[in-house]
Amino acid sequence: MHVIVDFTVVPVGTGISLSPYIAEVERVLQRAGLRHELHANGTNVEGEWDAVMAAIRACHEALHAMGVPRIHTDIKLGTRSDREQCMADKVASVQARIQGQEF
Amino acid sequence: MHVIVDFTVVPVGTGISLSPYIAEVERVLQRAGLRHELHANGTNVEGEWDAVMAAIRACHEALHAMGVPRIHTDIKLGTRSDREQCMADKVASVQARIQGQEF
Amino acid sequence: MHVIVDFTVVPVGTGISLSPYIAEVERVLQRAGLRHELHANGTNVEGEWDAVMAAIRACHEALHAMGVPRIHTDIKLGTRSDREQCMADKVASVQARIQGQEF
Amino acid sequence: MHVIVDFTVVPVGTGISLSPYIAEVERVLQRAGLRHELHANGTNVEGEWDAVMAAIRACHEALHAMGVPRIHTDIKLGTRSDREQCMADKVASVQARIQGQEF
Repeated sequence: MHVIVDFTVVPVGTGISLSPYIAEVERVLQRAGLRHELHANGTNVEGEWDAVMAAIRACHEALHAMGVPRIHTDIKLGTRSDREQCMADKVASVQARIQGQEF
Repeated sequence: MHVIVDFTVVPVGTGISLSPYIAEVERVLQRAGLRHELHANGTNVEGEWDAVMAAIRACHEALHAMGVPRIHTDIKLGTRSDREQCMADKVASVQARIQGQEF
Repeated sequence: MHVIVDFTVVPVGTGISLSPYIAEVERVLQRAGLRHELHANGTNVEGEWDAVMAAIRACHEALHAMGVPRIHTDIKLGTRSDREQCMADKVASVQARIQGQEF
Repeated sequence: MHVIVDFTVVPVGTGISLSPYIAEVERVLQRAGLRHELHANGTNVEGEWDAVMAAIRACHEALHAMGVPRIHTDIKLGTRSDREQCMADKVASVQARIQGQEF
């Protein structure tokens, strides 16, 4: 089952600068070989359900290994059974609508 | 890795009444043998990471099998490396604080 | 516009114990006079949109005043134009389905 | 209080194609004069707390006016009292870390 995910990892109890941890999240996703895109409030990633969830788990393990004692993560995800869709399709579909075209 | 999760499954493209689908989510969690609690905006569940994520995947599969073409799900989760904590501890900890006790 | 909300406030950069801050969130909601229910991963609250959002803003202000430098909050919310619904209705509706009754 | 937000609006009970509704969300944000960025799983927006929350409320009102009977929305947001930060800073900070630079 293909899944399109947005997730945000929030390290707790480690100080106020979170960018070292988010950089590590990006490295974990890179190593996992999953298509991913960093944005201002999280990271979009897509792939097979189990591969994506294993990668998010690997992010938690990597951050705990860096000394983060507590991690809060938000995940928003979507699956479809009617047709295949990838992340780029979703943005293109909305942009076409904004420009008054059908999609 | 133990994880405490809140998740909300939102069936899209199937009409306005969602309770038949949320009831199915509860049945899937029951069969999975995971501790879970329904609340007004989602379900809390806890257990080993892989077991919990497999159960949420099983919810998506069950709802697609019921004819739901598109599913949006939100997940909030927490892991800790400093100590073990279960769902009941979290509520008790806050309630003790509200009553002016240390915890 | 009536809104039913679940939200979770995650203080960042203040240590690992979050219960003092969640207790303060509960006090802010109590003072706001909104119906609310603490659960293991957040708080459910309902009311008029502006009153609920003002209360969540007041939570951020109260926690910053306690010295929390950075706050991450998740909100899940629902509005309906087809009929009125309150938090208790949502749980009752699912429980009736689980028991095999229509609702 | 400045807030950086990611939100996703999920229309329920209106069919499977959501892009007409997401396009309307973008138009509402455009009219509100708030800095915003569409991504594959939502929209990032920033500004003063009340202005941003009023814009998200206006999205709900616009979609209900289009005939959507039920709307589920996820919001992730952050506020800081230690320093000012905008959306572009957050991405730049992580990218600098990935490239091995301090930020």
